[in-house]
Amino acid sequence: MPYLDHAATTPMLPEAVAAVTEALGRVGNPSSLHGAGRRARRTVEESREQLAAVLGARPSEVLFTAGGTESDNLAVKGIFWARRDADPRRVRVIAGSVDHHAVVDTVDWLVAHEGARVTWLPVDAAGVVHPDALRTALAADPDDVALVTVMWANNEIGTVMPIAELAAVAHEFGVPLHTDAVQAVPSLPVDFALAGADALTMTGHKLGGPPGAGALLLRRDVACVPLLHGGGQERDIRSGTLNVPGAVGLSVATALCAQRRAITSARVGALRDDLVAGVLAAVPDAVVHGHPTRRLPGIANISFPGCEGDALMMLLDARGVECSTGSACSAGVAQPSHVLLAIGADAARARGSLRFSLGHDSSHDDVEQAVAAIGPAVERARRAGLTSVAS
Amino acid sequence: MPYLDHAATTPMLPEAVAAVTEALGRVGNPSSLHGAGRRARRTVEESREQLAAVLGARPSEVLFTAGGTESDNLAVKGIFWARRDADPRRVRVIAGSVDHHAVVDTVDWLVAHEGARVTWLPVDAAGVVHPDALRTALAADPDDVALVTVMWANNEIGTVMPIAELAAVAHEFGVPLHTDAVQAVPSLPVDFALAGADALTMTGHKLGGPPGAGALLLRRDVACVPLLHGGGQERDIRSGTLNVPGAVGLSVATALCAQRRAITSARVGALRDDLVAGVLAAVPDAVVHGHPTRRLPGIANISFPGCEGDALMMLLDARGVECSTGSACSAGVAQPSHVLLAIGADAARARGSLRFSLGHDSSHDDVEQAVAAIGPAVERARRAGLTSVAS
Repeated sequence: MPYLDHAATTPMLPEAVAAVTEALGRVGNPSSLHGAGRRARRTVEESREQLAAVLGARPSEVLFTAGGTESDNLAVKGIFWARRDADPRRVRVIAGSVDHHAVVDTVDWLVAHEGARVTWLPVDAAGVVHPDALRTALAADPDDVALVTVMWANNEIGTVMPIAELAAVAHEFGVPLHTDAVQAVPSLPVDFALAGADALTMTGHKLGGPPGAGALLLRRDVACVPLLHGGGQERDIRSGTLNVPGAVGLSVATALCAQRRAITSARVGALRDDLVAGVLAAVPDAVVHGHPTRRLPGIANISFPGCEGDALMMLLDARGVECSTGSACSAGVAQPSHVLLAIGADAARARGSLRFSLGHDSSHDDVEQAVAAIGPAVERARRAGLTSVAS
Repeated sequence: MPYLDHAATTPMLPEAVAAVTEALGRVGNPSSLHGAGRRARRTVEESREQLAAVLGARPSEVLFTAGGTESDNLAVKGIFWARRDADPRRVRVIAGSVDHHAVVDTVDWLVAHEGARVTWLPVDAAGVVHPDALRTALAADPDDVALVTVMWANNEIGTVMPIAELAAVAHEFGVPLHTDAVQAVPSLPVDFALAGADALTMTGHKLGGPPGAGALLLRRDVACVPLLHGGGQERDIRSGTLNVPGAVGLSVATALCAQRRAITSARVGALRDDLVAGVLAAVPDAVVHGHPTRRLPGIANISFPGCEGDALMMLLDARGVECSTGSACSAGVAQPSHVLLAIGADAARARGSLRFSLGHDSSHDDVEQAVAAIGPAVERARRAGLTSVAS
């Protein structure tokens, strides 16, 4: 069964499963001061140090959260509120137009509910946010900007953004930059300090760690209003009993992922290229989205003219090939992808797209089966499309 | 090693560990539409149905979250915002004065940051919020109230609140009631529908489930602004990739806990009574807090005159007895407990208190060891106190 939806969630690494399971068997709230609490605290702090070392951050910059969506919401709302509280003029958010819904919908809420204004950064046909576009947006009025938020790598088409350059531009204007690196961390050498970002979102279940465990990297000098108030855990920015097994599994998986990255990325990238070549051979008029080179190794987003992506996805599923029409987080929503529209696809092309995403356990067999299935599936989807138009 | 801090976190049930571990080995994002996604979705929905059945709720009323703190924040902020959005006069929160910091600090933030006003409900010397106190608070101006929030059972002294009566009073005035039932669900027959609450917080790691997994029960007719925006999971009220192993472990543990409740509560209550009797025999001037009968079976909060609770706790820890000075979530904070102050303790009595909390794996041996340790520990703590006063 070819599972080609690793960008939605990827199988846990056996080492991470073992680490989580072992931690599930030990009792202790890291906030407790007795022996069991101190042992739990030590485990969490070791995980924090490991995660920080892998990601080029200081341990004190790591805030454990429940995942990517929480980290995005915390960074975008929290920095917005803190910067606006410090200076009421700062109500503008500058955001990438192809960012994940966890950022886009958060920004939309700040606009609808909190009096924010937004400047959506345009992308080119490959999906790249250019530093010049950010400079223009900032220069229009640097004093009204609360924060910049641009994803590191796109989850639908795989395009990688020039994050270090974008952060440098934001800093020219004294504005903090948050980046959603949920898809970048599994495949790219993400270094928080080198990138110069002020806040960075990452999560476990995209890289072989457990679901429900993520982190926000946050520079110590960037104020952030908490989303979750209470016990004062995580520098008083993210209250809630620390999830010890989650932190352990997250750091183990992230470390292994980083160790194996060069080899895995090369192997996965080659498989992805084979998949794309095979699909194009079977369906010559298919269109491949995303940047030709600055792209995550595992992602192939392909539009099939004359097809509805949903129908095609289900036809492939019936043949045992599991992929998606875009973000799992908008699966079932009958709207064309905002990412594909932003790179210039019309609604028909956007609706006719599939995302194949490969990962650490993908194989040559997976690719062969997907390539074998795509031709007949497209043919059938096109016939269904014609029928529905005719009826 | 007597672990007497079950109210901070309790060992996972082996059945829950097994269920979580099994789920960790399966891939699939419940938002994905292919086979793996649908299987993951089915697992989550079965967990939701099981949890709902145990708690007297409908499946559609269960929102999975990352835990108690998130559920409390979501309910209090979300219902506040939704009610204020519908009618800008509704800016007052009526809250229990002995509620958990996840509620108290959330309310404080609404006051400091969102223009809320608060009425703290007084408690009697046993820690009970009386329905008459709520009626008085509501009658003062029913039209300016956004919500009422009162915990079901107190985490420090174990006092159980008359939640059904409080909910009935809130409804007389057309105001929704949220209750933090984090400590109630493990020990009491909590029934959401019977209680008449509009929103209820519960979490896994207090009842033998996994950390990082909780739920908010929320009636369908109660509007709630999301804290986490994004993919639109959980009725669009709590976005974020669903934590499948967390949901499974939460529902398995909650169901087992409910099945075994009568027997466990009787056993734990008897052990707790033995502990209290033993402590009072060893330290005759110790003072027991909380309601004499309407109290959680596992909790004994006891003040030791002339002692600093922190020092006493560490002395007991050195003897292998693990307990706390109050909520783990405020451990390390050098302030006297707001709960003990609210029930009329002076600062010295509040600072001299320990919470012993027993749970499903507590034994007669645990109690014997704790009783044997308390006398010498108190004696030493008192000597230390005298020394520090003298020096």
